Amino acid sequence: MDIKLNSNFNSIKETYLFSDIARKVRDYKEQNPEAELIRMGIGDVTLPLPAPCVDALVKAGKEMGVKETFRGYPPEYGYDFLRGAIAFHYRKLGADIADSEVFVSDGAKSDLGNLPDILGDNPIIIPDPVYPVYVDSNLMAGRRISYVKGDKDNGFLPEPPRDETAEASVIYICSPNNPTGAVYTREGLTRWVDFALKTGSLIIFDSAYEAFISDDLPHTIYEIEGSKECAVEVSSFSKFAGFTGTRCGWTIVPDQLTAGGVKLSKLWSRRQATKFNGVSYPVQRAAEASLTDEGLKALKANIDYYKNNARLMSDLLRSKGLFFTGGTNSPYIWLKCPDDMGGWEFFDLMLTRFGIVGTPGEGFGEAGKGYFRLTAFGSAEDTEEAIRRLRDL
Amino acid sequence: MDIKLNSNFNSIKETYLFSDIARKVRDYKEQNPEAELIRMGIGDVTLPLPAPCVDALVKAGKEMGVKETFRGYPPEYGYDFLRGAIAFHYRKLGADIADSEVFVSDGAKSDLGNLPDILGDNPIIIPDPVYPVYVDSNLMAGRRISYVKGDKDNGFLPEPPRDETAEASVIYICSPNNPTGAVYTREGLTRWVDFALKTGSLIIFDSAYEAFISDDLPHTIYEIEGSKECAVEVSSFSKFAGFTGTRCGWTIVPDQLTAGGVKLSKLWSRRQATKFNGVSYPVQRAAEASLTDEGLKALKANIDYYKNNARLMSDLLRSKGLFFTGGTNSPYIWLKCPDDMGGWEFFDLMLTRFGIVGTPGEGFGEAGKGYFRLTAFGSAEDTEEAIRRLRDL
Repeated sequence: MDIKLNSNFNSIKETYLFSDIARKVRDYKEQNPEAELIRMGIGDVTLPLPAPCVDALVKAGKEMGVKETFRGYPPEYGYDFLRGAIAFHYRKLGADIADSEVFVSDGAKSDLGNLPDILGDNPIIIPDPVYPVYVDSNLMAGRRISYVKGDKDNGFLPEPPRDETAEASVIYICSPNNPTGAVYTREGLTRWVDFALKTGSLIIFDSAYEAFISDDLPHTIYEIEGSKECAVEVSSFSKFAGFTGTRCGWTIVPDQLTAGGVKLSKLWSRRQATKFNGVSYPVQRAAEASLTDEGLKALKANIDYYKNNARLMSDLLRSKGLFFTGGTNSPYIWLKCPDDMGGWEFFDLMLTRFGIVGTPGEGFGEAGKGYFRLTAFGSAEDTEEAIRRLRDL
Repeated sequence: MDIKLNSNFNSIKETYLFSDIARKVRDYKEQNPEAELIRMGIGDVTLPLPAPCVDALVKAGKEMGVKETFRGYPPEYGYDFLRGAIAFHYRKLGADIADSEVFVSDGAKSDLGNLPDILGDNPIIIPDPVYPVYVDSNLMAGRRISYVKGDKDNGFLPEPPRDETAEASVIYICSPNNPTGAVYTREGLTRWVDFALKTGSLIIFDSAYEAFISDDLPHTIYEIEGSKECAVEVSSFSKFAGFTGTRCGWTIVPDQLTAGGVKLSKLWSRRQATKFNGVSYPVQRAAEASLTDEGLKALKANIDYYKNNARLMSDLLRSKGLFFTGGTNSPYIWLKCPDDMGGWEFFDLMLTRFGIVGTPGEGFGEAGKGYFRLTAFGSAEDTEEAIRRLRDL
């Protein structure tokens, strides 16, 4: 064909991170068939869906088979029952969110990927290291990205640029952060909100790991004053309630958020009504069930299970004197590789000497060099075994 | 905020078609509370999901609640079991599609809306009248659109432009067409494929209503020679198996489809892996079940039910001497309003004199002026009652 393709795709780095890891693990297993590997590399949940969610999913599935209770096209922005349940969840966190400000979707990745559709050509500010979707979806749209670097000094919680002439930008913040597990304090987030208000910027706040917070730290950007004038928030049931395979998320677009006199919610509504047809009815019922008292109790038990894994790993790393972030209010542990090793070098050591698979920090940005991500989504038994093996580290 | 928004959204016409219809109907009901309205305006299914799909959905939902059978993130392009089942469906239609050419999604609207992401700034050719998503998603991307007009003479099956200097373009074709119900013959589609091959164009073929075809007409563009060098196909379980509320669709991107030496499948893979996280596991199992012998039998019964409605309505219109397309291989009937009435004028007449709600053709493009869409997705009882009322038309 002679049509033109989107040439911005050329500027996206081909990352073979997870396929490289898979290949290395496969090769090692072939040469060491007796090795019992412990996988702490994957950011996916392993515990089953909470029982109230399964019950709701099954009940709604059966409703679809009966003429009187069958449902056709769902509302593009989510059923009122789910928008209401999500807004109520925010109000319990102390954030004043109206039902109509909630836009239900099939997951945070979709919303994060699609939000650039409604934006013009603004400078983009992205933390490094970070979840690669922010970078790639903006490269696909041909945007200019600048990075704010995380490091040992700032505890992987980069501050806003000090540049007094900074342009109005689109700023991505992920807290608790993937991959570092670092969580902004109220003061830290307030500095970002103030920067956004001063420069006329938009914050896209990713709170997908909010449910892992147990210390007194902000669960949502809307705990911060002024945030409804400058921030949308993207979140998900994936890590909240184990929905990675069930697929449901949401975006909050505050009603008062405007640029050039145009409401962002109007553009996002239009984008979603044109290019999206809503989320499966049984999935929305399952999501709703996760927000009931019974659902919240069940999902908390799952999160506590993962957090216990993270605590045990953190204790070990602390006893070894290794620098790390996360592990407390997050399923992720982000550690500095010992002896100034590179991430891949440490990967090989962990694989061949301890039989543990993690993720080299290099996969999450330049500032991830020499770091390593471990996840707490494995089983308690595997975590204990990993700790036994790592006593010799 | 001072950020720039996507100014292309300004060029999208605000259409209030369905809200205008809803308001008119509401007003009429208020003034005539005793009126029993028959709704033949909505393109949504009403029969319940086929039993094999419900059973599969419920079974998979229960699997999600058990550790041993729980599933996390699905593959971004769909589970192998579903990609394989869809490819097999194509092979039964005589089209040579490999499993790896199938990309599963949450619906045709998403794929149709997102395909412009991977394309550059090409001229766009869109039939008129047509499903508004093609137009709006290209306007959002700032593309130049030219229309090929359907009319009484071409039976609402527009031919390729005769312009010998035509540029490489992106061409949308929907067959069976929404809203006209017209279906291209093999010869008709061959002319489009030949045009695309000659001009280096890409065809985006929408086959969402394929299951309604019973005459010897092409179910897929891939029945046409040369189409794998110039066409992607977008389709859905929505009308095929009543999945409008369950949400599952697919896009076929042939492996050999390239532009400037780049495979389209590579760009689409990258787009989907970056901005999409796959379809809910229970939904994919339900979709798979629709393609089993038992599922196909059940969904055919539903489609035959709708088609019988369409046949009865068609017989009536024929007996009245009205021109219409569709009604045979489609759930849609597209009729010329009698006495040169405009679509809205006829809408008012149908509502106030016969208590029947349809859709004015004006909502589907300029060439829809003076036409009216009726859908066959209602109940057999309502259809019979509508026919009784319309004897006086």
